[in-house]
Amino acid sequence: MKNYDYFINDLLEFLKIPSVSAKQDNSENMHKAAIFLKEILLKYGADYAEVIKTQGHPIVYGEKNVSKDTKTIIIYGHYDVMPAEPLEQWKTNPFEPVITDNKIFARGANDDKGQIFIQLAAFKYVVEHNFLKYNVKFIFEGEEEIGSTSLKQWLTLNKENINASLIVVSDTGMIDENKPSITIGLRGLVYLQIKVTGPLRDLHSGLYGGAVANPINILCRLIASVQDNNGKILIPGFYDDVIEFDNNQRALLNMVSIDEQKYKEEIGVKMLYGEQNYTLIERTSIRPTFDVCGIWGGYMGEGSKTIIPSVAFAKVSSRIVPAQTSKKIAELIKDYFIKVAPPYVSIEVDILHGGEPYLMPLNHKALITAKEALRSTYNIEPAFYISGGSIPIISEFEQILGVKSLLLGFGLDSDAIHAPNENFKLSQFEKGIKTLIEFYKNLEL
Amino acid sequence: MKNYDYFINDLLEFLKIPSVSAKQDNSENMHKAAIFLKEILLKYGADYAEVIKTQGHPIVYGEKNVSKDTKTIIIYGHYDVMPAEPLEQWKTNPFEPVITDNKIFARGANDDKGQIFIQLAAFKYVVEHNFLKYNVKFIFEGEEEIGSTSLKQWLTLNKENINASLIVVSDTGMIDENKPSITIGLRGLVYLQIKVTGPLRDLHSGLYGGAVANPINILCRLIASVQDNNGKILIPGFYDDVIEFDNNQRALLNMVSIDEQKYKEEIGVKMLYGEQNYTLIERTSIRPTFDVCGIWGGYMGEGSKTIIPSVAFAKVSSRIVPAQTSKKIAELIKDYFIKVAPPYVSIEVDILHGGEPYLMPLNHKALITAKEALRSTYNIEPAFYISGGSIPIISEFEQILGVKSLLLGFGLDSDAIHAPNENFKLSQFEKGIKTLIEFYKNLEL
Repeated sequence: MKNYDYFINDLLEFLKIPSVSAKQDNSENMHKAAIFLKEILLKYGADYAEVIKTQGHPIVYGEKNVSKDTKTIIIYGHYDVMPAEPLEQWKTNPFEPVITDNKIFARGANDDKGQIFIQLAAFKYVVEHNFLKYNVKFIFEGEEEIGSTSLKQWLTLNKENINASLIVVSDTGMIDENKPSITIGLRGLVYLQIKVTGPLRDLHSGLYGGAVANPINILCRLIASVQDNNGKILIPGFYDDVIEFDNNQRALLNMVSIDEQKYKEEIGVKMLYGEQNYTLIERTSIRPTFDVCGIWGGYMGEGSKTIIPSVAFAKVSSRIVPAQTSKKIAELIKDYFIKVAPPYVSIEVDILHGGEPYLMPLNHKALITAKEALRSTYNIEPAFYISGGSIPIISEFEQILGVKSLLLGFGLDSDAIHAPNENFKLSQFEKGIKTLIEFYKNLEL
Repeated sequence: MKNYDYFINDLLEFLKIPSVSAKQDNSENMHKAAIFLKEILLKYGADYAEVIKTQGHPIVYGEKNVSKDTKTIIIYGHYDVMPAEPLEQWKTNPFEPVITDNKIFARGANDDKGQIFIQLAAFKYVVEHNFLKYNVKFIFEGEEEIGSTSLKQWLTLNKENINASLIVVSDTGMIDENKPSITIGLRGLVYLQIKVTGPLRDLHSGLYGGAVANPINILCRLIASVQDNNGKILIPGFYDDVIEFDNNQRALLNMVSIDEQKYKEEIGVKMLYGEQNYTLIERTSIRPTFDVCGIWGGYMGEGSKTIIPSVAFAKVSSRIVPAQTSKKIAELIKDYFIKVAPPYVSIEVDILHGGEPYLMPLNHKALITAKEALRSTYNIEPAFYISGGSIPIISEFEQILGVKSLLLGFGLDSDAIHAPNENFKLSQFEKGIKTLIEFYKNLEL
């Protein structure tokens, strides 16, 4: 492809900016990434671009106007990335991108800086070759990984001026590079932090042990009580709003075969796990979860220290599915922990953020066009699938703007997004650009 | 008391040396503390003192020989201290001792540097006033907080040369400064580290959540399964060797009344907790425990990171009671965790260290003399009690040398040993010295 290295070089510069949104005192890097993206938009053919200040990290907004009489699409992405910790598990520096084995290794190589560049490259191509049929509005945010608060506020304030017919997003993956697919659904998310406090200071575990409740023991007991041995959630009412898929729908979802042996090898587990009577695909798409993302308390150093700690913390998250809502589930989890915590300790539960699940209608025109574009690039019949991940802003777009999002992403499971050694395959980068060019060529709204 | 400030000044210098035995690369400080103690021994009246190299931290050995024809007592203590973490909870620097409100604040102010100095001050006094009747051997180690490995080896190698009739130790507390007491028993200890490993890298909790077992969730479930809601341990066979005290023995133990309201206020808990049908005193002395001393895994930083972590760790300890043995209980706990861990994860359990419980006969001559000495200093009838804490080396002394230890300590619960803001009351320091002088004056072996 023409200009292919050109895009990669720009992407590598973008990846060097450590735009970790969850990190405090990082606004300089966030701003740097936003400015960089604004300049790329202008360089790649936008009429107009600006960095919009928010109460959090800035939004990058741009426009390319073809005609007043045509419809508008939004291209959405996010320039913020996940924290790179644990750093010691990276083989290379997360913010010094390296190309090895035809893959780019860096935090954000896929999620979402790499995928943003697929969109930008395709955009540049269709502009230069004069077949852009629709007006384009670019909306890139810096808070996707921490709840998209500022973008939601901005969308709410500006919704009258954003008159779009479709949102196109490359922030998802496909089942395999030999099984191109489009994401038609997403799980939602709730994320909470739990603090269990026992004695006001760490106590000697010998002098006090047996008479004073240990906040770590209690926290473990509370967490353990949430699920049965197969991960089914036991909080009363948790499944009340879950849509049970019928046998036809389940059959459609399960059409894509997954090589479980390969899946296990790739992530290094001996056995898979999960709710009884659901397949691997179902467990990771249409069923909700409860995972502890982090836990800490007491002595974590070398050797041994014999204490009853004063306090213990956990970060817990639940992936939710249609028609659960993040508000209701977050409150259910919060209330559960508060209710079951024994009176020997005090407990605080903070809801950190949440996002709703999402579903795209199977007969949407853009979905059909995207499927054809994928088939043309990959020469394989594409599949539709529901991702287990969450992009809370996608359901917000629907709620605030009333517009559906096409989730046409090019990530692979092996890209290790959110984890050490995140990477992106150059071949997927190239095929992504080809697919999007074909899509924009043929899109009829 | 004559020379009182003199001892305090020496102690303050001792407290400035951060002799944390659990910390790696700290051998310079350990050596410095040992040398300091050796010089103090010579300065205070020992005939001979040396720093003995070991495979771990050095032993400080000293002698004062009165006569070949008299019996020998050992004065034992430890110059190593617990890690000072969490540092942010200290009001002053743990290794820059400060005297405020007639208390010394520093790591080791009580445990055991402060208490060693009570012994040293009393020794200096009885030597100078010519009423030392027995030969004295000083044995101070630098590994008490990490299992006393080197001292055990040294004792085993040198047991033929150490012909003693009694060991005197100030490394325990009394119930209250208005309730002077002697420790007649100690709980033992086992300490293990557990590692639960799931996927080979942190996974995106959306893409994999529901299909891959989360090692933190599993670790919590394993820990929670060890106890019932009141802390009773459910591991089969755990209580098999526990000596149940009869009603007379229980009555004796419970003679000392504890102000539960004050106890709760001092540690800042709303409610006490523990095994049904046992009193507070019993729960912390004659009943075994299971406490998680530390736990960690996944994302512990600010904000949220949505992962299934690769690995989770816990440090767990169990206080054991006569006639449990550390080897058997450590193996029981280890085997339990390995057995109940589900096949979705791998588990490693390391036994870090252990020590045996201890009991002193109630009719031991030294015990009676010590009781009288305490009565003389405090003008209150002293009590005997069993401490919930562990000094593994005390039972090792008994096993290796065949000698009983008199545990005559002057710590208070409010001293916060092993915790931030450890402190030692100057009044207890002074009364301790007086008591020991009286004890050495009257001791008949």
